[in-house]
Amino acid sequence: MQRSHHCGALTTANIGETVTLNGWVQTRRDLGGVLFIDLRDRSGIVQVVFNPAYSGEALQTADRVRSEYVIAVTGKVVQRDAETINPNLPTGQIEVQITEIEVLNAAKTPPFFIEDGVEVDESLRLKHRYLDLRRPEMHRTLKLRSKAAKVFRDFLDGEDFVEVETPILTKSSPEGARDYLVPSRVHEGEFFALPQSPQIYKQLLMVGGLERYYQIARCFRDEDLRADRQPEFTQVDIETSFLQQDDLLGMMERLMVKLFRETIGVEIPTPFQRITHAEAMGKYGSDKPDLRFGLELVEMNDIVANSGVKVFASVIEKGGEVKVLNAKGCGTWTRKEIDDLGPYAARYGAKGLAWIQIKEGEFKGPIVKFMTPEEIEAIRERTGAEEGDLLLFSADTKKVVADVLGAIRLKIGRQLGLIDDNVFKFVWVTDFPLLGYDEEQKRYVAEHHPFTRPNEEDLHLFDTDPGKIRAQAYDIVLNGYEVGGGSMRIYKRDVQEKMFNAIGLSPEEAKDKFGYLLEAFEYGTPPHGGIAFGFDRLVMLLTGRTNLRETIAFPKTASATDLLMNAPSGVDQAQLEQLHIRLAPKPASTKA
Amino acid sequence: MQRSHHCGALTTANIGETVTLNGWVQTRRDLGGVLFIDLRDRSGIVQVVFNPAYSGEALQTADRVRSEYVIAVTGKVVQRDAETINPNLPTGQIEVQITEIEVLNAAKTPPFFIEDGVEVDESLRLKHRYLDLRRPEMHRTLKLRSKAAKVFRDFLDGEDFVEVETPILTKSSPEGARDYLVPSRVHEGEFFALPQSPQIYKQLLMVGGLERYYQIARCFRDEDLRADRQPEFTQVDIETSFLQQDDLLGMMERLMVKLFRETIGVEIPTPFQRITHAEAMGKYGSDKPDLRFGLELVEMNDIVANSGVKVFASVIEKGGEVKVLNAKGCGTWTRKEIDDLGPYAARYGAKGLAWIQIKEGEFKGPIVKFMTPEEIEAIRERTGAEEGDLLLFSADTKKVVADVLGAIRLKIGRQLGLIDDNVFKFVWVTDFPLLGYDEEQKRYVAEHHPFTRPNEEDLHLFDTDPGKIRAQAYDIVLNGYEVGGGSMRIYKRDVQEKMFNAIGLSPEEAKDKFGYLLEAFEYGTPPHGGIAFGFDRLVMLLTGRTNLRETIAFPKTASATDLLMNAPSGVDQAQLEQLHIRLAPKPASTKA
Repeated sequence: MQRSHHCGALTTANIGETVTLNGWVQTRRDLGGVLFIDLRDRSGIVQVVFNPAYSGEALQTADRVRSEYVIAVTGKVVQRDAETINPNLPTGQIEVQITEIEVLNAAKTPPFFIEDGVEVDESLRLKHRYLDLRRPEMHRTLKLRSKAAKVFRDFLDGEDFVEVETPILTKSSPEGARDYLVPSRVHEGEFFALPQSPQIYKQLLMVGGLERYYQIARCFRDEDLRADRQPEFTQVDIETSFLQQDDLLGMMERLMVKLFRETIGVEIPTPFQRITHAEAMGKYGSDKPDLRFGLELVEMNDIVANSGVKVFASVIEKGGEVKVLNAKGCGTWTRKEIDDLGPYAARYGAKGLAWIQIKEGEFKGPIVKFMTPEEIEAIRERTGAEEGDLLLFSADTKKVVADVLGAIRLKIGRQLGLIDDNVFKFVWVTDFPLLGYDEEQKRYVAEHHPFTRPNEEDLHLFDTDPGKIRAQAYDIVLNGYEVGGGSMRIYKRDVQEKMFNAIGLSPEEAKDKFGYLLEAFEYGTPPHGGIAFGFDRLVMLLTGRTNLRETIAFPKTASATDLLMNAPSGVDQAQLEQLHIRLAPKPASTKA
Repeated sequence: MQRSHHCGALTTANIGETVTLNGWVQTRRDLGGVLFIDLRDRSGIVQVVFNPAYSGEALQTADRVRSEYVIAVTGKVVQRDAETINPNLPTGQIEVQITEIEVLNAAKTPPFFIEDGVEVDESLRLKHRYLDLRRPEMHRTLKLRSKAAKVFRDFLDGEDFVEVETPILTKSSPEGARDYLVPSRVHEGEFFALPQSPQIYKQLLMVGGLERYYQIARCFRDEDLRADRQPEFTQVDIETSFLQQDDLLGMMERLMVKLFRETIGVEIPTPFQRITHAEAMGKYGSDKPDLRFGLELVEMNDIVANSGVKVFASVIEKGGEVKVLNAKGCGTWTRKEIDDLGPYAARYGAKGLAWIQIKEGEFKGPIVKFMTPEEIEAIRERTGAEEGDLLLFSADTKKVVADVLGAIRLKIGRQLGLIDDNVFKFVWVTDFPLLGYDEEQKRYVAEHHPFTRPNEEDLHLFDTDPGKIRAQAYDIVLNGYEVGGGSMRIYKRDVQEKMFNAIGLSPEEAKDKFGYLLEAFEYGTPPHGGIAFGFDRLVMLLTGRTNLRETIAFPKTASATDLLMNAPSGVDQAQLEQLHIRLAPKPASTKA
């Protein structure tokens, strides 16, 4: 009984037709001699009816089916009686009068209902993922994910990119602390590593003259997991030669427009806003600002440098910063509501949070009495503070101020309903710093990676102030999520040497760490650069989810466990012997 | 100087235009004051000319470029003089008169010429794969590979398949001797395994109601490598629910037709021939027969069972087999030519190779004198032997006879020029045996895997003669290569139990080995089945290559080494400690 139609595709246009359906029993209602089954397949649900008037034999067989049984049925599509029409079901106008049924398979009672919106413990769902996947919501997500991959590919194929698969069994990277390793059986004592990204291969493909490469690539990172991380994740990896940053970014905007149009029917306006890293940090306290709303941070240093508020003055003297966030309309908050922000701010490093309310035309709050009328006036002017506003002050190092006010901005933005969940607001954050100073190691380190190209006009800063060098590096940010990032790469030998020198890598060390790549670069490397999109996260945002695991067919938990397969797991001693490894003895317990 | 055109795309239609090109210096010819450079990019080559008449400055700069330098040039496209037209170059009608040049990067002299057909040691090419990839042939291969992937996806998307990514970090399979293992940092003493295929996940997706799944999946097998194996390889993995074997096979034929049409413009006729495994073994001595030519094997048992040729009679008595291959037209071979087949046959297990030549109307050869005229007449009739033929006899176990005559058939087919390299001859081999008898373990083992569905009409044989059960398993064979294979899967519990019982797996052992899968099957598993194509091998055949490594951007050698990256390699002790493993001590040498 091979299916002639899909359940969810039947409409009033099929009335009078005899159809064969295959699917799962969603629900079964016995109305004493007449049996109704909601039959579900990938396309949706339709009601099928067993009645002795259509076939006594079919009714008898149907009587023993239960939820999630797999059945094949044949019958006639008919219009439902007016009073039984179900307007909530796309197929609610019709039902199928069954004359024949075959039970293809029985089913035990599932541990949870197969329907959307049911509150089920996630670990139970992951353990029985094959049942969880039957939910329409999961189907839709996987379908959208598949479609999104297709849109990426269609666009890139259309732009003459070549899809190239790069190895999964590769070499441990120089900063490989977080590599997954794979012992070699053939080469005793040696290991492959799983790639954190195809970065080196894609640069080698540019050296190889491929000019335009992409891959939807599996990447691996053995990090301690957060809610939005997975040990293996998927990125859309892109690299181009002979293309300027602006051209690449413009092309990627067209790609995003196509992606959102063809997956969820949303039109994204172009060009995307572009702001520098410095501006993003300054105005929004974040390198991945959510620009669906304003609430910009305002610099106060010049106004409060000599303020009677001692903490302001002393922070500024030590090279720190004072900034204000004007929480519009929160001037009516109670003292408790304001105080509740304290512990939240503390999570981001704040030692305190000063505030001023504007009530009845006046600045009110504990710090006001230490301020001069001129200071107050200057603050009012710069923040645009009006009746009913709440000014929140952070005074600390630049980093803490950004973290604290950046986080509070998001919290208050959501609290005030300033964030429209139907808006998709892209922004490019550009000109990331090339180098960061590592206080522990007392040296500069590459912020992105050591092949990131510095801005041409900053090259002279290698000799004077390396920390000020801007990189030709960019992130693409959507609604406060970093959904991609990349850079132009160094292709000139002298620039590469300056870079290694800046991060304290001697020529010998550089050769030791990046030998094959540096050798490759000697043979005529074109100017090149690229980008990688976090595919899981993009799918999450496209489907309006907040949990990355919901976008992946078989995800791992926060402790990197596959609950369905029960992986990782112990293996045979013989297997380890073949691989020339053994388990390290467990450390002796320190407890008695 | 951003490119306006690609080198290989310029034609006489561009004459008069000023173009900017980016690319690599292929060759440089200095004709005393005039310099010719063949400039290469991904699209091809064009001749650019430096002449003081166009720009003295450009000539001066060009004078210092060498092979594989990366340059940008601007100039005017002109018609070549009649006598300098190069008919071997697509752009041979024109050249570009350069007025401006920028050297984007210098290059050391490459270790080998960047052009097709150069004889270079493969290990040198693999070590400098980024240079090897610059050869037009490698570009074409990678482009075709990318296109082939697109055709697969377009077809399957069009048939409503959902592309799903399944995990790479998964569980060691029960017969996991050849799994690559990945030690877990988070779970001490435990390991992930890299998948040999997504088999179990794709079956779980069918339990999950996805109905149609595909993935172009990376798979891993830690085998001792042969020329046509790689430790990581790519397969197009497909699974369907509610579809009969015939419908699936028909759909896959349409897929192959599209693939060959859209990648290399070849029309493959349908339907593909289908032969059973028994017929393939019987007629061609192979389960992956090359059907571009005939030379079928002929069974002789009934004719020679009582023959005076003692080896024939005794082999048959012991349950073996005597078969003949009629090497048409080889009756003129010298004794030496025939004898040379001996060592070749021996490689496939032959202890000897009897033969008869038909010369001057007579059967000639060492065994003829032991035969009766009736035997000779019967042989002549059955083999169709004619003047000038050579009959080659193999007498041994069924397996050895098939191996020997199958191999000789291929050798002679090629030697006689019976194989047309321009023909793509597909055949489905169906009805593989479900079980094979393992002489060592004295039990039946699954030939495919233990979830392969037996033919309905053979189910009764579980109780009487399990070795005779045919499976709903099929391979797709192209020109003697297995390019794909799959099966319908067991979905009924009672059949699964019979299968486990047949291979000597107790319910407890089965649960231990396949617990999560068997549990999943309890919840309403649809009838399902699928196929997987060997993507690397298909690309190899599409591009007319014979070496799998040529189809992969960054392949590994036969000893599973990445010569470019030098992987696998040693890792830090600290990394091993984090993973709770240590190296096994090297075994003490047995030599003094």
